[in-house]
Amino acid sequence: MEAGTPEGCEIVRIVYPHTGNAAIVGFTGPPGVGKSTLVGAVTKLERERDRTIAVLSVDPSSPFTNGALLGDRIRLTEHFLDPGVFIRSMANRGALGGLAEAALQAVLLMDASGCDSVLVETVGVGQAEVDIVHHADTVVLVLVPGSGDSVQALKAGVMEIPDVIVVNKADHPLTQTMVREIKGVLALRSRQGWQVPVLLTQAASGVGVAMLLDTIAEHRAHLDAAGTLRDRRRHNLTTAVVAIAVRRLRNDLETIAANDPVARQVLDRVAARTLDPASAAAIVQRQLTSAPNP
Amino acid sequence: MEAGTPEGCEIVRIVYPHTGNAAIVGFTGPPGVGKSTLVGAVTKLERERDRTIAVLSVDPSSPFTNGALLGDRIRLTEHFLDPGVFIRSMANRGALGGLAEAALQAVLLMDASGCDSVLVETVGVGQAEVDIVHHADTVVLVLVPGSGDSVQALKAGVMEIPDVIVVNKADHPLTQTMVREIKGVLALRSRQGWQVPVLLTQAASGVGVAMLLDTIAEHRAHLDAAGTLRDRRRHNLTTAVVAIAVRRLRNDLETIAANDPVARQVLDRVAARTLDPASAAAIVQRQLTSAPNP
Repeated sequence: MEAGTPEGCEIVRIVYPHTGNAAIVGFTGPPGVGKSTLVGAVTKLERERDRTIAVLSVDPSSPFTNGALLGDRIRLTEHFLDPGVFIRSMANRGALGGLAEAALQAVLLMDASGCDSVLVETVGVGQAEVDIVHHADTVVLVLVPGSGDSVQALKAGVMEIPDVIVVNKADHPLTQTMVREIKGVLALRSRQGWQVPVLLTQAASGVGVAMLLDTIAEHRAHLDAAGTLRDRRRHNLTTAVVAIAVRRLRNDLETIAANDPVARQVLDRVAARTLDPASAAAIVQRQLTSAPNP
Repeated sequence: MEAGTPEGCEIVRIVYPHTGNAAIVGFTGPPGVGKSTLVGAVTKLERERDRTIAVLSVDPSSPFTNGALLGDRIRLTEHFLDPGVFIRSMANRGALGGLAEAALQAVLLMDASGCDSVLVETVGVGQAEVDIVHHADTVVLVLVPGSGDSVQALKAGVMEIPDVIVVNKADHPLTQTMVREIKGVLALRSRQGWQVPVLLTQAASGVGVAMLLDTIAEHRAHLDAAGTLRDRRRHNLTTAVVAIAVRRLRNDLETIAANDPVARQVLDRVAARTLDPASAAAIVQRQLTSAPNP
């Protein structure tokens, strides 16, 4: 069974009542910051505490994807034979939108399987379309000394403030400079309630990972105490439902733009500057509703 | 007249046959790299060469937006009274999608006004939803020494390779390191045809700006010689038409999710885990087609 297919939808439909029990933790951040290694280190520690873990990698740049498992780089390989760890990686299936829907299905299946935590690794720079992170109860942004663009994006408000910020590879000499910059941004954009902590880790050697796990647990306790977990999940699920509908409509529109004779003629007129894009969009949209619904 | 409104659509519809003559140049890159200053320096030089210029800023992090014009920071202020320069900045109108549609309208109006070049400044980190850059004939990615995340995103393939890369603030001691890293990435991801140049600028003092203008002109000449400008524009316009339709449908879906009684009941069931998200999306989608079309 491959997630994202009609069979995937059917299985999710059946198991959905059994979801909602796992803690969903999203690890986001630019490529090259060591997200995979950090997720591996978190998994290892959770297993030592006898908790069951599912790991989903939806990062197109991750070494997990495309079947390229580089054993020497990835701490997770040591968990491949552990029945308490369920690992799933997804390659980019053409459009990132399709990837996001398949990823949501995978998270729901992992949740329903009864594991304690689902760890989702995803690339997230700026307004990433890889929106699986919106399904997480706790979002951890992973940066490294040198992540200047991300700090600027946080500062400018074009990147959302996460729940926890980790500066990985913290043995780098510029770590304290990076921490100061991040704290400066957080001070500018401070919110009521949960105060975003900035943690230091060295994922490759496990330094700081126990503190990260404690902080994730604290964040969850905060959500429970504030009664906001329920609201956050309802909001996330509404976002997911709208996103699924939008993706399906986008796929249908792209098919129409490529194949439908009326749409193709309309697009020819746009290219010839005889019909404007907004009017063309209205016509293409009508082809969508007039087409037989699958 | 405000772009993005029905009146904006109507005006674009009327002037659209007069578009397609201006060179559209997109300046993208993370916040804080000096895009505004660079666009200002390009504008100044173009005016000295007696070319008419329109500047559109759709960067929510730009000092132009939200009416916050910081005169001492922005080179463009000196052009405010020059009739050969048309400047327009757009604040974030809630959803970035709506911003993108309004930005496309603004670019088309600027193009129709008969100026020689339209310079579009936009933030672009990763898969930004600010897709106005897809309307450009030439895309210039602006980085600075320290743009480690962007270099990693280029390397990992989660950020598209632009037509020209500029390293601004090139008086920084780490400039040559950054150039080497970028060239390494370009060597890995090299394509047939146009070879992406890496230029150095110091926008604040104008250093390297003449070379940048020459390179943009060379890229345009390359497109003309290769006969690909027409294909690129047709592809861009098709993308724009689909994007407009998707945005309208997304807006309609969000309204339905918030207000339609059937949809709200469906979303309650999703939150209660009695109806799965994909099935809910199908129902919400049906509410869309059953609703009266405006």
